[in-house]
Amino acid sequence: MKQLCGNAVVGQSGGPTAAINATLAGVIRGVKENVHGGCIHTLYGMRNGVEGLLEERLIDLTSYFDSEEKLELLEHTPAAALGSCRKKLPKSGENDAFYEQMIAIFRKYDIRYFFYIGGNDSMDTVAKLSAYTKSHDYEMVILGVPKTIDNDLVGTDHTPGFGSAAKYIAVTTQEIIRDCAVYRVPAVTIIEIMGRDAGWLTAASAIGRVVNGMEPDLVYLPERVFDMQQFFADVRAALAKHPNVVVAVSEGIRFADGHYVGEGTQTGAKDAFGHAYLAGTGKALELAVKAEIGCKVRSIELNLPQRCASHLASATDILESIAVGRAAIQAASEGVTRQMMTIQRISDVPYMNEIWHSDVSEIANKIRYVDDAFINEAGNHVTDACCRYLLPLIQGEASCKYENGLPKHLVF
Amino acid sequence: MKQLCGNAVVGQSGGPTAAINATLAGVIRGVKENVHGGCIHTLYGMRNGVEGLLEERLIDLTSYFDSEEKLELLEHTPAAALGSCRKKLPKSGENDAFYEQMIAIFRKYDIRYFFYIGGNDSMDTVAKLSAYTKSHDYEMVILGVPKTIDNDLVGTDHTPGFGSAAKYIAVTTQEIIRDCAVYRVPAVTIIEIMGRDAGWLTAASAIGRVVNGMEPDLVYLPERVFDMQQFFADVRAALAKHPNVVVAVSEGIRFADGHYVGEGTQTGAKDAFGHAYLAGTGKALELAVKAEIGCKVRSIELNLPQRCASHLASATDILESIAVGRAAIQAASEGVTRQMMTIQRISDVPYMNEIWHSDVSEIANKIRYVDDAFINEAGNHVTDACCRYLLPLIQGEASCKYENGLPKHLVF
Repeated sequence: MKQLCGNAVVGQSGGPTAAINATLAGVIRGVKENVHGGCIHTLYGMRNGVEGLLEERLIDLTSYFDSEEKLELLEHTPAAALGSCRKKLPKSGENDAFYEQMIAIFRKYDIRYFFYIGGNDSMDTVAKLSAYTKSHDYEMVILGVPKTIDNDLVGTDHTPGFGSAAKYIAVTTQEIIRDCAVYRVPAVTIIEIMGRDAGWLTAASAIGRVVNGMEPDLVYLPERVFDMQQFFADVRAALAKHPNVVVAVSEGIRFADGHYVGEGTQTGAKDAFGHAYLAGTGKALELAVKAEIGCKVRSIELNLPQRCASHLASATDILESIAVGRAAIQAASEGVTRQMMTIQRISDVPYMNEIWHSDVSEIANKIRYVDDAFINEAGNHVTDACCRYLLPLIQGEASCKYENGLPKHLVF
Repeated sequence: MKQLCGNAVVGQSGGPTAAINATLAGVIRGVKENVHGGCIHTLYGMRNGVEGLLEERLIDLTSYFDSEEKLELLEHTPAAALGSCRKKLPKSGENDAFYEQMIAIFRKYDIRYFFYIGGNDSMDTVAKLSAYTKSHDYEMVILGVPKTIDNDLVGTDHTPGFGSAAKYIAVTTQEIIRDCAVYRVPAVTIIEIMGRDAGWLTAASAIGRVVNGMEPDLVYLPERVFDMQQFFADVRAALAKHPNVVVAVSEGIRFADGHYVGEGTQTGAKDAFGHAYLAGTGKALELAVKAEIGCKVRSIELNLPQRCASHLASATDILESIAVGRAAIQAASEGVTRQMMTIQRISDVPYMNEIWHSDVSEIANKIRYVDDAFINEAGNHVTDACCRYLLPLIQGEASCKYENGLPKHLVF
């Protein structure tokens, strides 16, 4: 097989995570370790994803990362070191000039390899660019490298970034449960967790069950219709058992009529992909419980820290994120294109997996929901099987470096 | 000096922290290490503070803590292992029967030493009980052991528990700043931090300035009157410099007329001490900025995790908390009574301090505000001197033990 030779470009897109920079480091490591057998010369980073690519805001990563120290620092820096964007590419045939401009930049920089690290919406970019270059005269390898805390990409056992967010949520929930247990006054604490469509992150609040038996009393995922009267009954039953009730809810839970529970208090704003911007699911339930049951109620929105708390990253997640990035370089050099890298689980105990890839057009714009077998019959908690699936992903603590009491981050 | 011989009782009171159990462990260590020279026989723990004492819900801590392993686990367990309460003791002369009931229990269990670990309101309990026993016929040593994330106790350089909360806030702020930096769209992120009266915790968001230059653009403390028009001007000026503006605000900031900024969205509820229960300072500012400036705005309430995140405790804080607990036993055996243990700073660099004590009646019901020299002239940030005061308190990472990916907590 003739190898395509030239330069490569890598970008980060979508919401930040604690592990997306580890994947970037994996891509850089793959290039520097020559796993591609010499076909990639320079690896460019695009600032702010495809937006920066169009503006030719490129950085030569091969030169910049001249030390192991810098790479390790990058692996423990949260967010997205190259910057991100939420740009949606035009549909095929709608704006060819856009794609031609992109290809002109590829030609100018002799870019033959395109790696895009991101989630669902980013895979849409990868799929569209793949389709365009395939049907037009520019030979190029295009790979998606998965990243999303939401764990909602199909075709992969889980997504890099999810394990660290899951660990943050699992640990924080344990600490909140301990905090709530100090008083004897009946009280309900509602933890609102990210997850617009899929409840994976919220499910992670319950991992403690299979470790130490400590878990929220109730867990509600967007995969099940939310019924307020049933919720009140569930909370009352929990309060009858002990005074400190902890409830975990996904931001995306909806009523039978399709309306979000948090919709009453939301702004109606939508993001670039048309997703409703939610706020206030926990707050809405707090007010409802206060009105209906009248006990002390508090809601806690885990908010941004759940996706950027690299001080509490999962070592398993960070190592896998690096491995997936490195594997993308290897796969690309073998001619794999228009695919997204995936993780295939081989066994839970001992936890084993292998890295593979899957057609990106079969992945983009689909959502992987929490399996039916992972949700209990009453729809108000997760099953042991769910905890067993999640547990391996939060193993190990990724030791970030501290300097003067604060974590060291790489900013470039 | 004749030593008072008998048993001791220790309790925890007020809001949980990541370090209050370390102080409890210090008290237990002091007793077990016999720093009292034999005058304390059994150390009881009261469940849920004085509430549990009145119900004789006591646990023999001398027997329970039979291993170093248990003590170490306790030192890294958040919240309050004995449980807490928010009971306000009756004023002198108002309800003598209440105090007589307490003294009957002391007699029954031969309790001659009373240690109460808590904050401002708990020192009120210590002061009242001290005053009562002094003027009535029951010889007893009564000591307050400070604990509060708020750092608002007078007479001490800082309070155990504050350093860990400050570290959580400092680290989380750094991670949020990194997260916010990934997009180029103008956006304001408002971090709401605990602190009803004093701004110490909010000030901690800025520690990064003297470490890596990374800090919020604006910091508002309750020590300064909050002016909405000036706030809009400050935010606009910050947005003119870079697109990702991060603002840290205390939950307790107020307008010139004395009303809390978050009051519009609060419930009006009050706690047992009559403090207004605040919620929504960040949310109120989020809505104000959206309406006035119109850019993307998000508010993040750090909420309970800032006081219970023992996975991110400051090693300095945990060690000091243990030391203060142990020192209380030593001081008590030397006849020190009706005092609160204090920490006196000797120097910033190298950081040195000594443990001492001060009359609790001079401490209870007073508030230590952030020094004028620690707030900038514009009233929208802290000074370098403030960061230098705070920096030693967040040094070191208290290594909590993990089991199967989750921190191990002691529950008894």
